[in-house]
Amino acid sequence: MATNEQLSADDVRAQWEAEAEAIRRARVNKAGTNPIDAIASRSGLEFLQAVFSGELPHPPIGETLNFLPIRAEYGRVVFQGTPMAAHYNPIGSVHGGWAATLLDSCVGCAVQSVLPKGKGYTTLELKVNFVRGLSPETGPVRAEGTVVHAGSRTATAEGRLVDAAGKLYAHATTTCLIMELPRG
Amino acid sequence: MATNEQLSADDVRAQWEAEAEAIRRARVNKAGTNPIDAIASRSGLEFLQAVFSGELPHPPIGETLNFLPIRAEYGRVVFQGTPMAAHYNPIGSVHGGWAATLLDSCVGCAVQSVLPKGKGYTTLELKVNFVRGLSPETGPVRAEGTVVHAGSRTATAEGRLVDAAGKLYAHATTTCLIMELPRG
Amino acid sequence: MATNEQLSADDVRAQWEAEAEAIRRARVNKAGTNPIDAIASRSGLEFLQAVFSGELPHPPIGETLNFLPIRAEYGRVVFQGTPMAAHYNPIGSVHGGWAATLLDSCVGCAVQSVLPKGKGYTTLELKVNFVRGLSPETGPVRAEGTVVHAGSRTATAEGRLVDAAGKLYAHATTTCLIMELPRG
Amino acid sequence: MATNEQLSADDVRAQWEAEAEAIRRARVNKAGTNPIDAIASRSGLEFLQAVFSGELPHPPIGETLNFLPIRAEYGRVVFQGTPMAAHYNPIGSVHGGWAATLLDSCVGCAVQSVLPKGKGYTTLELKVNFVRGLSPETGPVRAEGTVVHAGSRTATAEGRLVDAAGKLYAHATTTCLIMELPRG
Repeated sequence: MATNEQLSADDVRAQWEAEAEAIRRARVNKAGTNPIDAIASRSGLEFLQAVFSGELPHPPIGETLNFLPIRAEYGRVVFQGTPMAAHYNPIGSVHGGWAATLLDSCVGCAVQSVLPKGKGYTTLELKVNFVRGLSPETGPVRAEGTVVHAGSRTATAEGRLVDAAGKLYAHATTTCLIMELPRG
Repeated sequence: MATNEQLSADDVRAQWEAEAEAIRRARVNKAGTNPIDAIASRSGLEFLQAVFSGELPHPPIGETLNFLPIRAEYGRVVFQGTPMAAHYNPIGSVHGGWAATLLDSCVGCAVQSVLPKGKGYTTLELKVNFVRGLSPETGPVRAEGTVVHAGSRTATAEGRLVDAAGKLYAHATTTCLIMELPRG
Repeated sequence: MATNEQLSADDVRAQWEAEAEAIRRARVNKAGTNPIDAIASRSGLEFLQAVFSGELPHPPIGETLNFLPIRAEYGRVVFQGTPMAAHYNPIGSVHGGWAATLLDSCVGCAVQSVLPKGKGYTTLELKVNFVRGLSPETGPVRAEGTVVHAGSRTATAEGRLVDAAGKLYAHATTTCLIMELPRG
Repeated sequence: MATNEQLSADDVRAQWEAEAEAIRRARVNKAGTNPIDAIASRSGLEFLQAVFSGELPHPPIGETLNFLPIRAEYGRVVFQGTPMAAHYNPIGSVHGGWAATLLDSCVGCAVQSVLPKGKGYTTLELKVNFVRGLSPETGPVRAEGTVVHAGSRTATAEGRLVDAAGKLYAHATTTCLIMELPRG
């Protein structure tokens, strides 16, 4: 996000929305789930890129909570979402679970992005700090996950949820267990 | 849940589903949000009970993620939900964010349940341990939150997500900030 | 600690100090460390009981930070310590690291207490909530750890740090990785 | 630590040890604690710099656990320590509480470094990920804390514990409460 400093928040927001729209259009498949083979036959990054590009089905939770994946690189994964009234808690602000879900996605996928073919992961724990409330006025936000430690048995990652002006809303860390996937 | 030991998991599940159905029917209001007055004019427990009984609107996020509040006592709050295909992650298990959302609800409301009139809270952080995967076969699960420490400026609570057989799926702790609500 | 309700805080404190003194006297060995064989040849609980009873050397960190183990049962382990001026932070209260160390001990050992012979563990993460400050006037405190989830690959536990009056100072959760120990 | 890439780990280690030795020698005062006035009359950074430079007494816990402060800037604080046999757990590796204590110090002080005169803080929670074991062979390690969010009522920070080769041993996040200090 090095270019954000030169761009206004409005410019960044427009760019974010255009990127999300392009990703939505590129999706060949509907929301759905993938068989274990689709995972076991690819490295973590190859699997993520196949889902992110729309070649493989994208997850239903993304439609339910209005977020989608933007980019997967080795060790770094970005999601984008826009909170809506359907995500409100009783007092009319966005439920903390919405931010937790986006952060869980980006930190878990960051771990997955460094796994070789034949390895999978499961999330053992997630810790989220909520530093600002989200509302539908917030507009689109991005959850960016980065691997902190990648070991052979466990991995950790951290994530940040920011708006187009670079303002921080929440941040998280996770611990994942790495495991062998069943052979195809 | 002292009686669970005498009942089979099927009995408990049937009872849980009946309780949830009764709560759904009792709701006078649709999903929606509450004005600050509705909160500021009640103690935390009174506000929760008015939402839980259906007297006040219940939160939209509960419809989006298929969970609802069951019971609010002083220091202890229970939610119930049933994971569905719409909550799947890319590989066909329920997204960790679903469990995180139920746990965030129960621990935050447990803190709210001990607040006197005029006080509100905001969640500073939530930490969730995921110990078993959820699937639509899991059936209904309950998230039970309990206050651990209630101070004048901050409070902590813990929560557990279990199925009708008493099996644990996830557990959490939270730290909340207590604050003055604006007077009505 | 069911009997605490009938006893005054002073009675409990006197009893706690007597128990600690008896444990100190029973120690045949000095502080030191144990070879991997001493662990690999015992179940987790047998190893802890051998250390706690003084049959095996007790850990140097306990002398450095003035705490000692009190009791190990299956799934539940208790430590006791008394904060001193040597544990002060710059502003004259006890450093949070002191409470974190006792809590790390009790939750880690709670996990170890449920491991069969041949299995070991390592702590992946520890989260501590500090709810009250400790000072040398606090007197002895106990850190009680309890297993929450014991799986084949990972386990979680929680812990509480309380004084003789039952007042809570800090609480914690941990995630541990279970692994095979090298055979003796 | 931008220069680490040009220097060998041995060079960095020698430099780290020289810096620590210079700090030890510069200390006018012995270990001890500071009256509330010493804090209330300075900004957070001024207080830290007065302790770090040796003008004000340094905390006893640093002598007990063999670590000392290296550098305090606005939003970023570095500590250095060397684990010793006195910090061992029962099985001869360094107790997780040692790393937790250094990380608690660096993240808490990072928060303090951004506080204006008249404001203090207390640590609400600390979460530590342990990614590698420490032993006395590890040599000196540095705990570097950085502020993530600085609000008016709460602040968060993160920390990393690395050796002279840049290898990561543990990382942490913290949530702190900001409060008014009593006026002098």
